[in-house]
Amino acid sequence: MIISMRPGATKREVEHVTERIREFGFRVHSIEGEERVVIGVVGVGGDVEACLESLEATPGVEKAVRISAPYKFVSREFRKERTTIRVGAAEIGGDEFVTMAGPCSVESEQQIMETAEAVAAAGAKLLRGGAFKPRTSPYDFQGMEEAGLKLLAKAREATGLAVITEVMSDRDVDLVADYADVMQIGARNMQNFALLKALGRCGRPVLLKRGLSSTIKELLMSAEYVVAHGNSQVMLCERGIRTFETATRNTCDITAVPVLNEMTHLPVIVDPSHATGKRSLVPALAKAAVAIGADGMIVEVHPCPEKAVSDGAQSLTIQGFRDMMRDLSGYIELWKKERLAEMVAV
Amino acid sequence: MIISMRPGATKREVEHVTERIREFGFRVHSIEGEERVVIGVVGVGGDVEACLESLEATPGVEKAVRISAPYKFVSREFRKERTTIRVGAAEIGGDEFVTMAGPCSVESEQQIMETAEAVAAAGAKLLRGGAFKPRTSPYDFQGMEEAGLKLLAKAREATGLAVITEVMSDRDVDLVADYADVMQIGARNMQNFALLKALGRCGRPVLLKRGLSSTIKELLMSAEYVVAHGNSQVMLCERGIRTFETATRNTCDITAVPVLNEMTHLPVIVDPSHATGKRSLVPALAKAAVAIGADGMIVEVHPCPEKAVSDGAQSLTIQGFRDMMRDLSGYIELWKKERLAEMVAV
Amino acid sequence: MIISMRPGATKREVEHVTERIREFGFRVHSIEGEERVVIGVVGVGGDVEACLESLEATPGVEKAVRISAPYKFVSREFRKERTTIRVGAAEIGGDEFVTMAGPCSVESEQQIMETAEAVAAAGAKLLRGGAFKPRTSPYDFQGMEEAGLKLLAKAREATGLAVITEVMSDRDVDLVADYADVMQIGARNMQNFALLKALGRCGRPVLLKRGLSSTIKELLMSAEYVVAHGNSQVMLCERGIRTFETATRNTCDITAVPVLNEMTHLPVIVDPSHATGKRSLVPALAKAAVAIGADGMIVEVHPCPEKAVSDGAQSLTIQGFRDMMRDLSGYIELWKKERLAEMVAV
Amino acid sequence: MIISMRPGATKREVEHVTERIREFGFRVHSIEGEERVVIGVVGVGGDVEACLESLEATPGVEKAVRISAPYKFVSREFRKERTTIRVGAAEIGGDEFVTMAGPCSVESEQQIMETAEAVAAAGAKLLRGGAFKPRTSPYDFQGMEEAGLKLLAKAREATGLAVITEVMSDRDVDLVADYADVMQIGARNMQNFALLKALGRCGRPVLLKRGLSSTIKELLMSAEYVVAHGNSQVMLCERGIRTFETATRNTCDITAVPVLNEMTHLPVIVDPSHATGKRSLVPALAKAAVAIGADGMIVEVHPCPEKAVSDGAQSLTIQGFRDMMRDLSGYIELWKKERLAEMVAV
Repeated sequence: MIISMRPGATKREVEHVTERIREFGFRVHSIEGEERVVIGVVGVGGDVEACLESLEATPGVEKAVRISAPYKFVSREFRKERTTIRVGAAEIGGDEFVTMAGPCSVESEQQIMETAEAVAAAGAKLLRGGAFKPRTSPYDFQGMEEAGLKLLAKAREATGLAVITEVMSDRDVDLVADYADVMQIGARNMQNFALLKALGRCGRPVLLKRGLSSTIKELLMSAEYVVAHGNSQVMLCERGIRTFETATRNTCDITAVPVLNEMTHLPVIVDPSHATGKRSLVPALAKAAVAIGADGMIVEVHPCPEKAVSDGAQSLTIQGFRDMMRDLSGYIELWKKERLAEMVAV
Repeated sequence: MIISMRPGATKREVEHVTERIREFGFRVHSIEGEERVVIGVVGVGGDVEACLESLEATPGVEKAVRISAPYKFVSREFRKERTTIRVGAAEIGGDEFVTMAGPCSVESEQQIMETAEAVAAAGAKLLRGGAFKPRTSPYDFQGMEEAGLKLLAKAREATGLAVITEVMSDRDVDLVADYADVMQIGARNMQNFALLKALGRCGRPVLLKRGLSSTIKELLMSAEYVVAHGNSQVMLCERGIRTFETATRNTCDITAVPVLNEMTHLPVIVDPSHATGKRSLVPALAKAAVAIGADGMIVEVHPCPEKAVSDGAQSLTIQGFRDMMRDLSGYIELWKKERLAEMVAV
Repeated sequence: MIISMRPGATKREVEHVTERIREFGFRVHSIEGEERVVIGVVGVGGDVEACLESLEATPGVEKAVRISAPYKFVSREFRKERTTIRVGAAEIGGDEFVTMAGPCSVESEQQIMETAEAVAAAGAKLLRGGAFKPRTSPYDFQGMEEAGLKLLAKAREATGLAVITEVMSDRDVDLVADYADVMQIGARNMQNFALLKALGRCGRPVLLKRGLSSTIKELLMSAEYVVAHGNSQVMLCERGIRTFETATRNTCDITAVPVLNEMTHLPVIVDPSHATGKRSLVPALAKAAVAIGADGMIVEVHPCPEKAVSDGAQSLTIQGFRDMMRDLSGYIELWKKERLAEMVAV
Repeated sequence: MIISMRPGATKREVEHVTERIREFGFRVHSIEGEERVVIGVVGVGGDVEACLESLEATPGVEKAVRISAPYKFVSREFRKERTTIRVGAAEIGGDEFVTMAGPCSVESEQQIMETAEAVAAAGAKLLRGGAFKPRTSPYDFQGMEEAGLKLLAKAREATGLAVITEVMSDRDVDLVADYADVMQIGARNMQNFALLKALGRCGRPVLLKRGLSSTIKELLMSAEYVVAHGNSQVMLCERGIRTFETATRNTCDITAVPVLNEMTHLPVIVDPSHATGKRSLVPALAKAAVAIGADGMIVEVHPCPEKAVSDGAQSLTIQGFRDMMRDLSGYIELWKKERLAEMVAV
């Protein structure tokens, strides 16, 4: 931690700060510049965050900046090799680019079975589908709840696809875990800390979507919550952030993929459906996701998008999904070659 | 709703769209422009949102735009007069500017009692203090939970202040409602729909903080959730949004106050502590909040900010709070004069 | 400057960095933490920015952070007392809240004369009006150019108002300076460095509008350009920044006013017209601007907004301007009392 | 254009609006909804933008929304086939992915010659290098100006690379056009309309960088300025936008590439150097740029980044550039196959 004092901070203020630092169990290393004093805080074992908070509030301090990462288990320093997560027939984070596909919402048996069979045939390894739906409006369809979970389980039996579905409240974690292979945390719940803690205690892998206005660091902190509460099977998902641009539903921060690869060992998934909000843009963004080195993608597909109860505009038709998977195959080959080369190198 | 078709949409596509509109129970009013067809959707009783979603996903449609507001109960059209919410000795939304003050977190009996007495003496009507704390890091202090709620209740008894405190999970709603006068929903939970529904069913007034990247319309939609589930005692809180600017912790969208006053009858509270993140800026922003016509403010105060377990940098000292309240008095007089004039006018 | 090395940076890399620092004429103060080495760069006379750029690009360096401010002349450290700028009958930055008002564009003699007389009567001290107009579309009205400047000069003669008008190119600086009392730099030109340099050499005060996505620090750096090139008569203008919110044309970062007051001695003006984009919101935001301590405001007024060639939706009518000035008077009295108290204190 | 009246707008207000529309030369098509009147404005020949501005400012109007695009020449409706721009040996927008590479600033003959030779050998077709530098600080290196242009010309002679370099003021357009093959407009000048007009009249192709907070629509409007003033040889450049994320220098809106491909026939270039700000992220983003269908990229390369006077942290070394070009080759092959297939299809 580095503390920079205000220009003109008094000697007494500087002394008081150094005393506070020592009370927190750290050593002090102070640098007298021409304009101001800067203090390095060194040592382990003390509570860095609490010390930082305290110093920020202490008279004479201009800024207190943490140098070390605030997360631990999810960092590349903690674990050099990529985390792999086995789900059904797929291994996420390994040497296969994994596709998850399905409708935004589970709507009926026919809809989910038809979609599941089609996406399995086209190469998906997981079936997505919402049974609990976070909707901006209280008047919109809120999901089939347990009935929807049962349909997902039925589709899994029929197709062999693993199931990923969203959980919206810590109250529902056990129920959803009874049916799902992967527990999805939606963007709006990325900092629902009660939910994160409950997922730390459930035995299922978790897909954590980045919040609309969450930094990459905050995404990692939320993943750290799940891991610190006992569950190391976490994958991260870039699904677009909120910016001033309105041509797309969100702005895909595609560079987050290599940034995360430098910072963490956890797998990274891209969601080109929510990132664009528009069917015609999904295949192009999917190519970019493969090329930039994501571990997989999660895509919305619906047998008849105009009859979808939610997200129809961004859902691919079944034929559209097939075409996309075909057009991606060359990119996925390059991806695989690079991943295998990396594995040999490590 | 207005549907604009793509330039070059076929006659068949236009017909298909008009059929879909009629299936949803609306009338069609179509305008043939030079470049494209635009279709007005008229009528009541149909499901506007579902129709919109469907049309957005229908071939040939370029854009579907809703003209009517997606919320109802919270709108000014639904209710012309301001909603007033009585809490303890205060009436929020009425002819008093209401101040809520206290520490970020409840830390100890001494801390909360000392703060409560001081802020009551300086003019606050509600005591704020967190017992359940949403913290970015799993390693930070997570709150005293029920023990904290008990201390808040004790401070209420001693001072007559009403208590406002945060609830983070639908699981905790009943517990928190046992102690709190106002249930606070934090910015990160503004779209925690399970929590919003549970608060609709609790008997307590709710203060709903705007999410870091939530639009004003989304804030109103979240308030609509609470009202539609049975609780009309909702106040809204502008606490700063996330932008590219880093000189302050958040960017206070102060204009949201008059915007909300045009759109809704619900009271609007400003939080100058989170909006700035910096003690020295709080009093100036509080003046602006009064001048622009907010119904009240919620401010962090701590007897010794540098020993605070959270948000010390933005907490006023007790003396700082007293000074601010004194400096605000002229502005509050003007506020009151304008509010009374408005009441006479209505 | 503080350089933090990557965890695991080699000894050689650390040595290379310290050599580079010494080559730039600075002293090195290195701190060995448990995880990494952090290096303090101390001394004056060296080129801080160049050193910073170099170190950021040097192997083994994780981050290089400048501690001292990158601007000098505009900082509060350089000059403790507020800068005052005399323009016609007004002194900006002094003990009067200064109002600048007028149409977005100069359109005709009748329009500008009528507006000038009305705003002067209602208390404005400067007349605004664009003769060179930055328009998003090449097909929109681009301004009356010199003919417009002549009309502004004529209005000045008739009313005694000083004239503020925009200059868009370094090529036009001399021409505009022949007619204007204050040279306005629009938000889109805040980092038009050729223009900033030219304004440094012109003999007129400058009003520098903050760019739509410019940080407060960048605004100060642009002001530093003008001052460093010879012109210390610069005032800054907060006119709203671009965020995700669409309920208003821009988001007014009202807290920028006290932030700037801590960082710089230059006057700060608020533009409630562009910050809101909507006539009905202007008076409320103007109150906030006064209350938070701005030195003045610049407001759009038009005799018949619906016939305005630009910005009609955010222009006050003449009667609207009169009403606003009347309603502001109580706030301006409080402003004046506080400003005089500050002057006594200093 | 669609005008939605406020709920409760009077009959007189509606009549006044329809009169105004007719005065502008349009036909009126009005729809009476349950809550409000919505008015369709139909016809050609009238001044759409002026009519829109007027109606937005007219009493009773809630919102006026333009349906047709505000640009013309740059739209896909105006021209179905891609625009190709021949520069030296390269054809941008055609069947080759074009790489532009070189240092941020021209610093010395040795630096520019060494870089030019190296990037030419590795496959670049254009040499980039700044002679006029837009720098946030007045104290930073401002470029070698004409001496730098001369060095670029010399490098062109030696290597056959075409030259792309930035012009910052309309005053310098002729000078820069004497040396450059492509005139670059920097992000901060995207709405420097005086400069855009001057570039419309120069005989050189233009690369127009997207502003830090500019929407895709505004980027197209700025391109329309250049084309409307006589120069149809414009290419667009996505170089990252400003968001709240600080892990990268900017946030690359990679989806802007397919969005632009739907909206315009102009070529689109990606700048992975400015979009990331960090050398280690450039190659991954370059892959995404190829995969998503950009027409080319512009990359910063320096023989010794830590000695670069600007942007060292994001500059590739010469070896780094070679490695990247080698790793891109598989992606570029796929790109070419798809482009050729598209050409056959059209």
